[in-house]
Amino acid sequence: MRARVLARDAEATGQTITLSADESAHVGRVLRLAIGDVVRVFDGRGHEWVATIQSGGATRVTVTLADLVVPAAESVVRYIVAPAVLKGDATDDVVRDAVMLGAAQVRPFVATRSEVRLATLVRTGRAARWTRIAVAAAKQCGRAVVPPVDDAIGFDVLARSVDTPLRVLLVEPGVAAAATSLRAIARPPAVTLAIGPEGGWTADEVTLATAHGWTAVRLGARTVRAASMALVALAACQAVWDDGDPSPDEE
Amino acid sequence: MRARVLARDAEATGQTITLSADESAHVGRVLRLAIGDVVRVFDGRGHEWVATIQSGGATRVTVTLADLVVPAAESVVRYIVAPAVLKGDATDDVVRDAVMLGAAQVRPFVATRSEVRLATLVRTGRAARWTRIAVAAAKQCGRAVVPPVDDAIGFDVLARSVDTPLRVLLVEPGVAAAATSLRAIARPPAVTLAIGPEGGWTADEVTLATAHGWTAVRLGARTVRAASMALVALAACQAVWDDGDPSPDEE
Repeated sequence: MRARVLARDAEATGQTITLSADESAHVGRVLRLAIGDVVRVFDGRGHEWVATIQSGGATRVTVTLADLVVPAAESVVRYIVAPAVLKGDATDDVVRDAVMLGAAQVRPFVATRSEVRLATLVRTGRAARWTRIAVAAAKQCGRAVVPPVDDAIGFDVLARSVDTPLRVLLVEPGVAAAATSLRAIARPPAVTLAIGPEGGWTADEVTLATAHGWTAVRLGARTVRAASMALVALAACQAVWDDGDPSPDEE
Repeated sequence: MRARVLARDAEATGQTITLSADESAHVGRVLRLAIGDVVRVFDGRGHEWVATIQSGGATRVTVTLADLVVPAAESVVRYIVAPAVLKGDATDDVVRDAVMLGAAQVRPFVATRSEVRLATLVRTGRAARWTRIAVAAAKQCGRAVVPPVDDAIGFDVLARSVDTPLRVLLVEPGVAAAATSLRAIARPPAVTLAIGPEGGWTADEVTLATAHGWTAVRLGARTVRAASMALVALAACQAVWDDGDPSPDEE
């Protein structure tokens, strides 16, 4: 696959754009591409072009956009993944996996049993790091869309504010709430998938969510690591709801 | 959930057994349980008992088995997960995830593009470590079955020797071989899921496998990290094939 470069200001064939410092360094220093070399440029919103390097330099590379290409197909269902922030760096992998499996948006949250505080996440610029991870994951998996990763919020705020037609609270086998299986739910146009922290949901959180129209869903009878749950949930939803046929335009 | 202890020689209610040194240390030193405390004992083959600690000690704990309990339900489909051994310790997580999602057996292999050699795996006792991980995962997720983790073999040997009625080679979007979607396959009684290394399958490997009756399956149009693929594949298969209803006996 050709090198893929993100340029959020890319707009139309014929346009010459200056890559960001990060992308210039990647193209010039890491990949060692030179004037005349061909790359793919995507805008993060679903458009992708063939492009030619026009001028080089360690920190400033310009490219000219040529033909639009058909990018990798996005999921039929719009998946909004809402993961509880986990201990240490574990959320990094959750964001990466969610983007690679096609999430349209990532909305991290802090739950009662989270061992991380919102203030710490803000102070350490965690959302900016997650966005960099989302960009890297989009490049790697061939998506021309970089899903937005929101700043973390409290679960109580999330539970009340989400407005997708379907809101799913993934629950563990032990949870007493009546839980549905995925296959009992018709394919929605959009769904928010909320995944609890290492210690699971509190009873109050389950009550709050169901009072706000969330559906408790159990995926099989087994306990899965919190860090793996986003991946398991997305893979299960896509297997049940999405068209399994690959897009005719993918390469 | 009560502490769960593996005792491979557990057989019948009324029996008094001496736990292994590892399990004794876990019960006595880590959990600090004492004579009269109640635990769950499972035999790794699907049976589980309530048991009472009979005598204690830092390295030698005995328990007496009381009533049999109904263990967590096993998958309807027998999943044999065959993952390529990955770089560093990444295979540890693959084994853990596979056990937690219900694999009946794990058969690691070394492929052409694996960056690990069989001789190194044998010399460093990797299979023994994977088995310890499988035991820990079974305890954590509530299974009374500890799936066997085989010694790694070459992919050529695996491709020729697997005899489950369905053999699935998970392929990436880029692979030229004709690939089926999971939903086009009727639920099998047993399936082997082979997952390639970081660099993917070689064309020769795909040819060899299909010549030996393996079915190439593509899960969606996206590239997933090699370390996540076992989890994605199992979650997708279970969502499509397994009964989504929780077992009536789980707690």
